[in-house]
Amino acid sequence: MTEIANSPVRLTAVDSPDQPTPSAALEELYRGFEKELLVPLWTEIGDLMPVHPRSKAVPHLWRWENLVALAGEAGHLVPVGRGGERRAIALANPSLGGRPFATPTLWAAIQYLMPGEDAPEHRHTQHAFRFVVEGEGVWTVVGGDPVPMRRGDFLPQGGWNWHAHHNAADRPMAWIDGLDIPFQYVTESQFFEFGRDRISDAERTTPERSRSERLWGHPGLRPVSAPGAQTSSPLLAYRWADTDRALADQLALEAEGHAGTVEPGHAAVRYTNPTTGGDVLPTIRVEMHRVRAGAETAPRRETGSSVYQVFDGSGRITVGDRSWSVTRGDLFVVPSWTPFSARSEASASDSDSGSLDLFRFSDSPIFEALRLDRSDVERPQA
Amino acid sequence: MTEIANSPVRLTAVDSPDQPTPSAALEELYRGFEKELLVPLWTEIGDLMPVHPRSKAVPHLWRWENLVALAGEAGHLVPVGRGGERRAIALANPSLGGRPFATPTLWAAIQYLMPGEDAPEHRHTQHAFRFVVEGEGVWTVVGGDPVPMRRGDFLPQGGWNWHAHHNAADRPMAWIDGLDIPFQYVTESQFFEFGRDRISDAERTTPERSRSERLWGHPGLRPVSAPGAQTSSPLLAYRWADTDRALADQLALEAEGHAGTVEPGHAAVRYTNPTTGGDVLPTIRVEMHRVRAGAETAPRRETGSSVYQVFDGSGRITVGDRSWSVTRGDLFVVPSWTPFSARSEASASDSDSGSLDLFRFSDSPIFEALRLDRSDVERPQA
Amino acid sequence: MTEIANSPVRLTAVDSPDQPTPSAALEELYRGFEKELLVPLWTEIGDLMPVHPRSKAVPHLWRWENLVALAGEAGHLVPVGRGGERRAIALANPSLGGRPFATPTLWAAIQYLMPGEDAPEHRHTQHAFRFVVEGEGVWTVVGGDPVPMRRGDFLPQGGWNWHAHHNAADRPMAWIDGLDIPFQYVTESQFFEFGRDRISDAERTTPERSRSERLWGHPGLRPVSAPGAQTSSPLLAYRWADTDRALADQLALEAEGHAGTVEPGHAAVRYTNPTTGGDVLPTIRVEMHRVRAGAETAPRRETGSSVYQVFDGSGRITVGDRSWSVTRGDLFVVPSWTPFSARSEASASDSDSGSLDLFRFSDSPIFEALRLDRSDVERPQA
Amino acid sequence: MTEIANSPVRLTAVDSPDQPTPSAALEELYRGFEKELLVPLWTEIGDLMPVHPRSKAVPHLWRWENLVALAGEAGHLVPVGRGGERRAIALANPSLGGRPFATPTLWAAIQYLMPGEDAPEHRHTQHAFRFVVEGEGVWTVVGGDPVPMRRGDFLPQGGWNWHAHHNAADRPMAWIDGLDIPFQYVTESQFFEFGRDRISDAERTTPERSRSERLWGHPGLRPVSAPGAQTSSPLLAYRWADTDRALADQLALEAEGHAGTVEPGHAAVRYTNPTTGGDVLPTIRVEMHRVRAGAETAPRRETGSSVYQVFDGSGRITVGDRSWSVTRGDLFVVPSWTPFSARSEASASDSDSGSLDLFRFSDSPIFEALRLDRSDVERPQA
Repeated sequence: MTEIANSPVRLTAVDSPDQPTPSAALEELYRGFEKELLVPLWTEIGDLMPVHPRSKAVPHLWRWENLVALAGEAGHLVPVGRGGERRAIALANPSLGGRPFATPTLWAAIQYLMPGEDAPEHRHTQHAFRFVVEGEGVWTVVGGDPVPMRRGDFLPQGGWNWHAHHNAADRPMAWIDGLDIPFQYVTESQFFEFGRDRISDAERTTPERSRSERLWGHPGLRPVSAPGAQTSSPLLAYRWADTDRALADQLALEAEGHAGTVEPGHAAVRYTNPTTGGDVLPTIRVEMHRVRAGAETAPRRETGSSVYQVFDGSGRITVGDRSWSVTRGDLFVVPSWTPFSARSEASASDSDSGSLDLFRFSDSPIFEALRLDRSDVERPQA
Repeated sequence: MTEIANSPVRLTAVDSPDQPTPSAALEELYRGFEKELLVPLWTEIGDLMPVHPRSKAVPHLWRWENLVALAGEAGHLVPVGRGGERRAIALANPSLGGRPFATPTLWAAIQYLMPGEDAPEHRHTQHAFRFVVEGEGVWTVVGGDPVPMRRGDFLPQGGWNWHAHHNAADRPMAWIDGLDIPFQYVTESQFFEFGRDRISDAERTTPERSRSERLWGHPGLRPVSAPGAQTSSPLLAYRWADTDRALADQLALEAEGHAGTVEPGHAAVRYTNPTTGGDVLPTIRVEMHRVRAGAETAPRRETGSSVYQVFDGSGRITVGDRSWSVTRGDLFVVPSWTPFSARSEASASDSDSGSLDLFRFSDSPIFEALRLDRSDVERPQA
Repeated sequence: MTEIANSPVRLTAVDSPDQPTPSAALEELYRGFEKELLVPLWTEIGDLMPVHPRSKAVPHLWRWENLVALAGEAGHLVPVGRGGERRAIALANPSLGGRPFATPTLWAAIQYLMPGEDAPEHRHTQHAFRFVVEGEGVWTVVGGDPVPMRRGDFLPQGGWNWHAHHNAADRPMAWIDGLDIPFQYVTESQFFEFGRDRISDAERTTPERSRSERLWGHPGLRPVSAPGAQTSSPLLAYRWADTDRALADQLALEAEGHAGTVEPGHAAVRYTNPTTGGDVLPTIRVEMHRVRAGAETAPRRETGSSVYQVFDGSGRITVGDRSWSVTRGDLFVVPSWTPFSARSEASASDSDSGSLDLFRFSDSPIFEALRLDRSDVERPQA
Repeated sequence: MTEIANSPVRLTAVDSPDQPTPSAALEELYRGFEKELLVPLWTEIGDLMPVHPRSKAVPHLWRWENLVALAGEAGHLVPVGRGGERRAIALANPSLGGRPFATPTLWAAIQYLMPGEDAPEHRHTQHAFRFVVEGEGVWTVVGGDPVPMRRGDFLPQGGWNWHAHHNAADRPMAWIDGLDIPFQYVTESQFFEFGRDRISDAERTTPERSRSERLWGHPGLRPVSAPGAQTSSPLLAYRWADTDRALADQLALEAEGHAGTVEPGHAAVRYTNPTTGGDVLPTIRVEMHRVRAGAETAPRRETGSSVYQVFDGSGRITVGDRSWSVTRGDLFVVPSWTPFSARSEASASDSDSGSLDLFRFSDSPIFEALRLDRSDVERPQA
């Protein structure tokens, strides 16, 4: 009897049209199931096999000013070094049990480095990236290649590459980290290894461009010396000047009557792995969206979840039945199969263009690789 | 204050070399994190980013005789029909919180159908299969194609195919179902649709071979009329006679001094999708292993988890630090990165051959598609 | 001047609407082109860039009885050994300049081995196969694996595998060889290497099944010990019993009202590489077609060329503007973009079924790999 | 007898160790072969199946100044219009029978357009590109998108895209065209279609950048609105400024002690299709190589053939047993499996850098797609 009492399985017979009729025999059967660590499908099917994904996560918004303030406090109280590894503070979706999971598969954190600080070298199978909404001065050193980080830059970090950070500037710097930590946590595929405690002086130099950009940062060109398809992008930085120009070009083409945008007033680029043309990381899709002043995107829902950060401009975003006014740096999550739309709403304090720039990352490559991707767009009626 | 109290995030400053020094300021910082729904990496890294996978699941064994007895009871108490959909009873790993998850990604259940019963038609994105350790008489009807099920047969069921079951025999029949329900549950990619309440009389016929086998069941041959690569196998039944012969052939080749087995005394075949040569389902790998009488497999560990069922013979299996004697029908799980080995131990009641036949399914295709697969074998030293 | 006279380039000014006006200056220009080894597009475009392929090859038929008679003569006059390597006699398309090219890309030959003879071991990058329209007794030894050859069997031979033949029977045997010799000849990609002058006694054994069939000849199953995708099929023999049953199954499904045939009365299977589900050889597609007694296939044309051999039955085939009555063993070619159709015409001497079985090989995989494939079918009007 | 006399097949019995003994019976057999249009392997094997490719093409050099002079003459004598389609003058390898084939698979021509001229719109399955060694002013209009051409620019033109040219400048312009015409000619896969006789005025505009560059010319970024993998590159111009910088970056990295060049003093980039990361065209590989002043490349041979044009600098190139001093614009061919090396030899008239820039195109993608590629490099001994 004690054994049953300790069983992690708990079953209750309920009087419902979908369930077997409660009876003493049924109760006894359920006690038998519990003892043998068994759970019937008929009590669980609605939760396990819904008509469409009903996310355990909820839409939520984090204000950048609050994150930066807390990270700044942590900069004074929490050292960076071996063990904790990084001064990174992660978004915890309110309905995911206090876990540092922005969504069931994605990790999003603000990382913060004080002047002169180093974050020690390590590597892990988790795929990662950095994105910079403001500031500069930190170098990420990947496999011995120092990569500067500045506002608007996107830095992918394929799994199992050695990497460290150091702040060469005289002021703190914050940026966001995106990883597939929750995905690898639930599927239990993660490996981790410590590297050198301190990178070499040669790696602490601060060149204008990383070596990776000198090899891979030329449009449509690849080094003949490099191997063929690589799992993650060998290009370690995607600079804002390129991204900005690509988005501006799309909106200009639209204005001239040509194809190029996703929908009217909505330009978007995806960061790609130049060795495959596919997603920049095997498990994470990363894009930058620009919504022209006054435009609004059609509500769209997809298998899988996304995290967005407002890179520039102001606007109003709607995620399922929630809606927020957002401004630079704000972060929010879009759970699986939850409709999302964004409207650009220029405010007095915005830059001239008045467009809303949204940085986005999602777990879409997982579903495409496994042929589980679906999407659905509510187009306005003619 | 109430707000903080209600926050799902709970942080505790601890006095440890890896953690920031406890102080009032740190406590205040943590309260700020909680209020903003933030969790620092430094308190979680050991759990989230271990040196290698440390599974939340544990090794566990379920005895077939107990499963069949309880399923038989359910046959009398639990009707099969719309709503509950299936009389399926799932293995619940003891450390996964009472959820019907054999492992963090895999579902394994015994399904049971009384004489004359029908399980209604539906479809879902979850990839599924049936495997028969004993009995016959049930037909699975897939897309209108009736597929008989008999001992040793493996029936894959790619996602989003309509399917129903009916028991045309005069006695109950049990088999196991394997699905990727937990994986799609945690990644939130699942869709489900009800079909007809009752399949047609034409579909209730009981032909010797399914149409799928007549089109796809010829070695190395494909119908010219069929499209190219398909997501899941169009072959809906892999018969025991073929599997048995393939395993016997490998051991015979080994005895003649030729390559073919995995290691001495250990033959194994993988069920494949004949349109790609790859795994039979996009998220589930399925294999049959045969360990020759007296042989033992080398301990092997892999990223991802497996469920095994003993198809025939007796033996002793070791999973991490657990070990069990097993016999026909017994089911057990091997968590991620946990070493597994099996020894064939013929008993008086076994068939002449004395070999141990192990049916296995795993989530390996997920990791291979995302380039997260690793494995490691302890070879005996020369 | 002598230099010009010796130039391989010869240009003539012609008076035609599409050509530049003849003049002394134009003649002088053309002499300049000749001297510099230049040829203008405007004199060649009609030949080089036609509206659709206009094959240099023509439809042609070879009678099996004539081939066998000549091969039998060669059996007495021409030894088999190092240097000549094989007693193979190739079809020479009448409009390809006397070259042993059945089509611009495909080689087809009858090979003939006297009792007790050996054809020495070698390997080459040319992809090859054997197909047996009658007889048995020869073993092809591939990488040390003896593979018996019998009526109806198809034996692929991926490039760069060592192979030899020996006739273990007490009578001669003939079969056909198909290779991509012309393709590799014109693209200049071929390598060749001599092997041992004599295979070992162990390789001269005559087992019922090859080792390759014991590893790979089980429908939908692959050895776990084998590597992943392989360039050419590791299955070295596709037996007639399987092919025959697959074709019969398709026609039976059609008779029952189900899909499966290419068109009414026309069943067809493609030999595949079980490690990829794709073509059995990287450059050659191989299929067996069965036209039911009285049925006729719709005229179809494709990029690329085919060679057919009548395996069984009688009928009438139409290739472009040519048409022939054909019977067992007859070989014919279908040039690129030339419509082909076949009608089964049972004769008194045929087997009971009255169907026409056509073995076919083509260069289609080349065009599919390079995205140059096109096809077009004339369907009968409703 | 007449029939035999007319047969295209001609066989001769020769007295040689590798051939059957000449005799009256053998002569009679050969007459029988001729009558039946058969050719034995044993008389042909040395030519058809050599130990390694022995190209029918020979190394050859064409001087740019001669080409331009003749093309200029043609500019006065040969109109451009429907029928001839293009004022293109092709290199004819001296040993390929006067055919306009630079190599057995590749076409290379100088194309020439007078001020104000238009070359009419058409499309074809042959894959094509333009490369500009000098001059500017011509626009290629591809699918309605005008693409300017200037020195150093590379413009791919995937098969079956509509395209036309017009010269908007007040002086003539010459460039080179590369196509797979010979490959599609011998494999008989080519289709061709005429377009409009005259492009619209809107297409005659001369924007600084093509629309394709505005969509696809940003490093590592792709428009979210575009479909996935495309057969040929959607980027219609690769500008010299990018290519030059990529080559300079590789040599600078080498000078700093980092990897990146092919070998010491030898930088090289490959033009890629940004939707796949692979070759820019399905049948043609295109690269730019830079040999640092004084450096020499290791002799290298490959399956398949190449055409080179000197883009800048001077040097000495060696192709098999031929060697030439070369300078800007000179074109030469490297036949299959013929060793090639280049040495940079700065002359007084060269630009400051003194490096030798070689534009190259080859048929390598054909062999890689069919798994027939091989290469071999003679590395200097340590």
